[in-house]
Amino acid sequence: MQVEAGPLLEKINYPADLRKLKVEDLEEVCKELRQYIIDVVSVNGGHFGASLGVVELSVALHYIFDTPYDQLVWDVGHQAYGHKILTGRRDLFHTNRLYGGISGFPKRTESEYDTFGVGHSSTSISAALGMAVASHYKNEKDRQHIAVIGDGSMTAGLAFEALNHAGVENSNLLVILNDNCMAIDPNVGALKEYLTDITTSESYNKLKKDVWKVLGPISKFGPNAREIVKKVEKSIKGSILKQSNFFEALKFRYFGPIDGHNVAHLAKVLEDLKHIPGPKLLHCITVKGKGYALAEQDQTKWHAPGLFDKITGEIKKSATVAPQPPKYQDVFGHTIVELAEKNPKIMGITPAMPSGSSLNIMMKAMPDRAFDVGIAEQHAVTFSAGLATQGMIPFCNIYSSFMQRAYDQVIHDVAIQKLNVVMCLDRAGIAGADGATHHGAYDLAYMRCIPNIVVSAPMNEEELRNLMFTAQQENMGPFVIRYPRGNGVMTDWKRPMQAIEVGKGRKICDGEEIAILTIGHIGNYAVKACSELNAEGISPAHYDMRFVKPLDENLLHEVFNKYKKIVTVEDGCLVGGMGSAVLEFMSDHGYNAQVKRLGIPDRFIEHGEQPELYNECNYDAAAIIKTVKELAGEHSAKLMAI
Amino acid sequence: MQVEAGPLLEKINYPADLRKLKVEDLEEVCKELRQYIIDVVSVNGGHFGASLGVVELSVALHYIFDTPYDQLVWDVGHQAYGHKILTGRRDLFHTNRLYGGISGFPKRTESEYDTFGVGHSSTSISAALGMAVASHYKNEKDRQHIAVIGDGSMTAGLAFEALNHAGVENSNLLVILNDNCMAIDPNVGALKEYLTDITTSESYNKLKKDVWKVLGPISKFGPNAREIVKKVEKSIKGSILKQSNFFEALKFRYFGPIDGHNVAHLAKVLEDLKHIPGPKLLHCITVKGKGYALAEQDQTKWHAPGLFDKITGEIKKSATVAPQPPKYQDVFGHTIVELAEKNPKIMGITPAMPSGSSLNIMMKAMPDRAFDVGIAEQHAVTFSAGLATQGMIPFCNIYSSFMQRAYDQVIHDVAIQKLNVVMCLDRAGIAGADGATHHGAYDLAYMRCIPNIVVSAPMNEEELRNLMFTAQQENMGPFVIRYPRGNGVMTDWKRPMQAIEVGKGRKICDGEEIAILTIGHIGNYAVKACSELNAEGISPAHYDMRFVKPLDENLLHEVFNKYKKIVTVEDGCLVGGMGSAVLEFMSDHGYNAQVKRLGIPDRFIEHGEQPELYNECNYDAAAIIKTVKELAGEHSAKLMAI
Repeated sequence: MQVEAGPLLEKINYPADLRKLKVEDLEEVCKELRQYIIDVVSVNGGHFGASLGVVELSVALHYIFDTPYDQLVWDVGHQAYGHKILTGRRDLFHTNRLYGGISGFPKRTESEYDTFGVGHSSTSISAALGMAVASHYKNEKDRQHIAVIGDGSMTAGLAFEALNHAGVENSNLLVILNDNCMAIDPNVGALKEYLTDITTSESYNKLKKDVWKVLGPISKFGPNAREIVKKVEKSIKGSILKQSNFFEALKFRYFGPIDGHNVAHLAKVLEDLKHIPGPKLLHCITVKGKGYALAEQDQTKWHAPGLFDKITGEIKKSATVAPQPPKYQDVFGHTIVELAEKNPKIMGITPAMPSGSSLNIMMKAMPDRAFDVGIAEQHAVTFSAGLATQGMIPFCNIYSSFMQRAYDQVIHDVAIQKLNVVMCLDRAGIAGADGATHHGAYDLAYMRCIPNIVVSAPMNEEELRNLMFTAQQENMGPFVIRYPRGNGVMTDWKRPMQAIEVGKGRKICDGEEIAILTIGHIGNYAVKACSELNAEGISPAHYDMRFVKPLDENLLHEVFNKYKKIVTVEDGCLVGGMGSAVLEFMSDHGYNAQVKRLGIPDRFIEHGEQPELYNECNYDAAAIIKTVKELAGEHSAKLMAI
Repeated sequence: MQVEAGPLLEKINYPADLRKLKVEDLEEVCKELRQYIIDVVSVNGGHFGASLGVVELSVALHYIFDTPYDQLVWDVGHQAYGHKILTGRRDLFHTNRLYGGISGFPKRTESEYDTFGVGHSSTSISAALGMAVASHYKNEKDRQHIAVIGDGSMTAGLAFEALNHAGVENSNLLVILNDNCMAIDPNVGALKEYLTDITTSESYNKLKKDVWKVLGPISKFGPNAREIVKKVEKSIKGSILKQSNFFEALKFRYFGPIDGHNVAHLAKVLEDLKHIPGPKLLHCITVKGKGYALAEQDQTKWHAPGLFDKITGEIKKSATVAPQPPKYQDVFGHTIVELAEKNPKIMGITPAMPSGSSLNIMMKAMPDRAFDVGIAEQHAVTFSAGLATQGMIPFCNIYSSFMQRAYDQVIHDVAIQKLNVVMCLDRAGIAGADGATHHGAYDLAYMRCIPNIVVSAPMNEEELRNLMFTAQQENMGPFVIRYPRGNGVMTDWKRPMQAIEVGKGRKICDGEEIAILTIGHIGNYAVKACSELNAEGISPAHYDMRFVKPLDENLLHEVFNKYKKIVTVEDGCLVGGMGSAVLEFMSDHGYNAQVKRLGIPDRFIEHGEQPELYNECNYDAAAIIKTVKELAGEHSAKLMAI
């Protein structure tokens, strides 16, 4: 739904229009921009708090810098709505995150102002440094490169690696630390505490106190004592804030902290920084959700609230009254607590996704056994491995696409050592509106090539609970459980748990001629397909593989002995996925069958609702029906030919 | 070859024996331990410099701490030879890194003193923190946890992520920063400069000077001025070294820097640190190669020198006189310079492997276009992506197993954006004596599932050069070239380069009945096999696929139309690898052939020489011959049955 922009914003199609305004007008532009974001997001959905927090920064950056010649990289990209609206996409903004609409993140193919595609956090400094080094090499001396990164993103190793390199490159790089004390959930860790310390001058005050203590009563040092002390204090203050600052230690020039909501002051500071060469960091204090009172108060809830009434703040729920199946993440969140109550070895780990993974339920119930380690997937996995060496059974919950960032840790620290780490991959398969960066498309392929590892996927809530129950038993070794974003299929899901034999699939229904093999939640689409097919007199068999590794070889022998036409269905990439595992089995055991594999094709899939994308990728119920009919038709055609 | 230990060392079978000695004896133990390492490594080979540098630390740690109850994690593990000798493995040490012998790295299955298996860098703090948190939970209040990490390893993001978490956990964790200013090559980056700064008190001296400048002539402040200044200086010094220190900013208590070669003093400091709770860091200054003069002088050369004469320092070369084929890495190193001389867009990037990748050749020839970014694989890839957005063509050279650490960056920053980043994966396939952690077994599987990416492997030096030539052309997008550790096959390799059509394989020889499909260097084993088979009257065809992605479909149609028996051979994992890609093609196109896949089986392969391991994994020339004969025999048997 389109909404109207304010009188100033209406005339800003590109930053060049913004730059025609007087600096005094910027505050009004910010007001209109903020209102526009609230108006659009409240009726169309999307991320909310992050972009409200950087309205002034967005305006000031495009006002002062010569974008797109000067290069602006937004970390993660949740923050970039204001940027998008100011750079040619105001009138498309209502299509944000919709199928066929603009992306919720900056994207190079969408605009020349989007210098680097993002989605996962903490890439901005590396990317901007690459741009800056290229400019340096090309002798573009005046060109500026700016990375805007949140304090949450700064905790990831990649950001640190980039700072460590940037500090010794002499290139025009400005890092803006957007410090709002938040990731999606409140930020955690030592660096966060340090930033608070700087902001409150705590270290300085402590040192000042120490110095005074050393000096004793000033009076005894004669008439000039106070003056001496004052001067020395000033010198120390400079030292604490500059020379010995964390970022100064990494050879950045540190500026700040400054108020990130005073747009005129921001503009002035940014103008000044343009003329300072080399790597520099500006520490901005902002409030996530700024300008929308409810969002300021509960920042996690308002990170991406869905549709809401902008006046009352009421978040709209879907209209259905009947009880709905729970989200898989909530089944995980409640079940881990249930298991941990009985098994004292269980611990829970999340890298900055307490609410996204629902591990917050355990963090509340058992604070000493559940850890949010910050945006730090690599550490989350190796820390879990360390826990497992001591007999603990850690459940490390990481979104499938984020687990890509801890791939070496899975191989090197968990799998080689056969440690009992349970890796729960949420948002596996097509993830929806976040798009290409967030689809968990590759996990079945990249996990199943690792030795020593169990790779499983539940078809419903009960199966998820049983797999979790199975995984927390002794000596199970590395154990992956992957499940999708969104809801399951059972309203009555809190059933007693029981162990599943590792590597054992299950038959959903017997059939004739054709067998459908599925893995995970997408199996429910096959159930639906079978039901419709049965009505038309076609009755394929359906097996839920449950495990991609180890494969259920008994089940597959049964299938290949009985059926010559097989359809595999997975919510994951076709290249190297479950279907390929089935082909490997078929080849290794000398079977010969016609196998049609359905799954995510070999290209990056954009954003949209999950059903829209399953459809696009040709593995929803309709696609399964069509495939089975085609296979059945070939058979009938052949029969008729005889 | 066994060598004799000195009189004290001979009696130390376990740390308990060491603890019976007086602290005055430790220096002699260190002398003997150092001598023992030199004696054994000079005749058996292995890593050298790192372990010599931590002799005193190894002795002091096992003397003071109650290992294995107290838990000691050695980062990377190159440093752990002394530790191994002191913990039950002195008499096995001559089998270090040999097939069937002890591992060159700590390994949990080898000893209870090896608390965490390592190989890749920067895992130790995460792992030790996991152990410490588990101890805290189990109320083992007296238990100590120590991570020993080099300054090179400290640059990796994982180490930072761990520090950021550890700083806010109240557990018994001691991080020992073994600061020798080296990775394998000299360490780089801002943190390294900072550590030098601390060591030389540079910041403190600068501040002191500033303070004096502020004060002006002291005399004017009366008789007590000097005393005031002295006290203030002391306070500032404390502040600079403690409160505002990089590690203190991350909420670690910082101690040091201290001399890492004074074993008695080390023992005393470690004893003191035992009684200080919470996270703490001891900064030790050591010299890599300490005690062996040549190794101290050229630390990169002596990181792992091979066999050498311990008296003259002469490094032994193999006895052959005839010219040898070059190492693949050197072909890369020379060729990138040759290409970059003609193509100004080319840049070279290595994460801390200038000598291991031979990028040092370019770093010397074109210092402004070749970057060592430190141990920071994630950053190396995203930085390359940033360069590529500006039209550069970066060659990012990363060992195959280390690329696991940048997997998300390959997908998220390179592939989704189709950026022209050339990823050269050295040490792909079985890597030899470094063992399970270092084999590049999974790259074909984990790369080929990514859309938009070219995955190639050269069969020889000329092919490597041609693939590099091909990859540096415009608009090639993400381009992987993987090649093994060690030598190629051509002495006359510096031939003019030419472009290869992307996705085009080549026929090595025509044949009958059976086709062998190979990828990469291992194809030479098939050539050898074919030659021996021909002598016996069996003549399989042989195709070099060159590309695993895109597959050469024309070639495969030819193959599947002509041959009903196919052998695939790859120096990579069987699960999801090139053979699986061939099966996918076969299934998708409705072919039906008997396919036998050779490659790395689905388990972790230990260390040994490459030919020993190819043999163990059943894909050397002998295995290919055997497989072809079996397939041919089946045919003959069938023919005879008719």
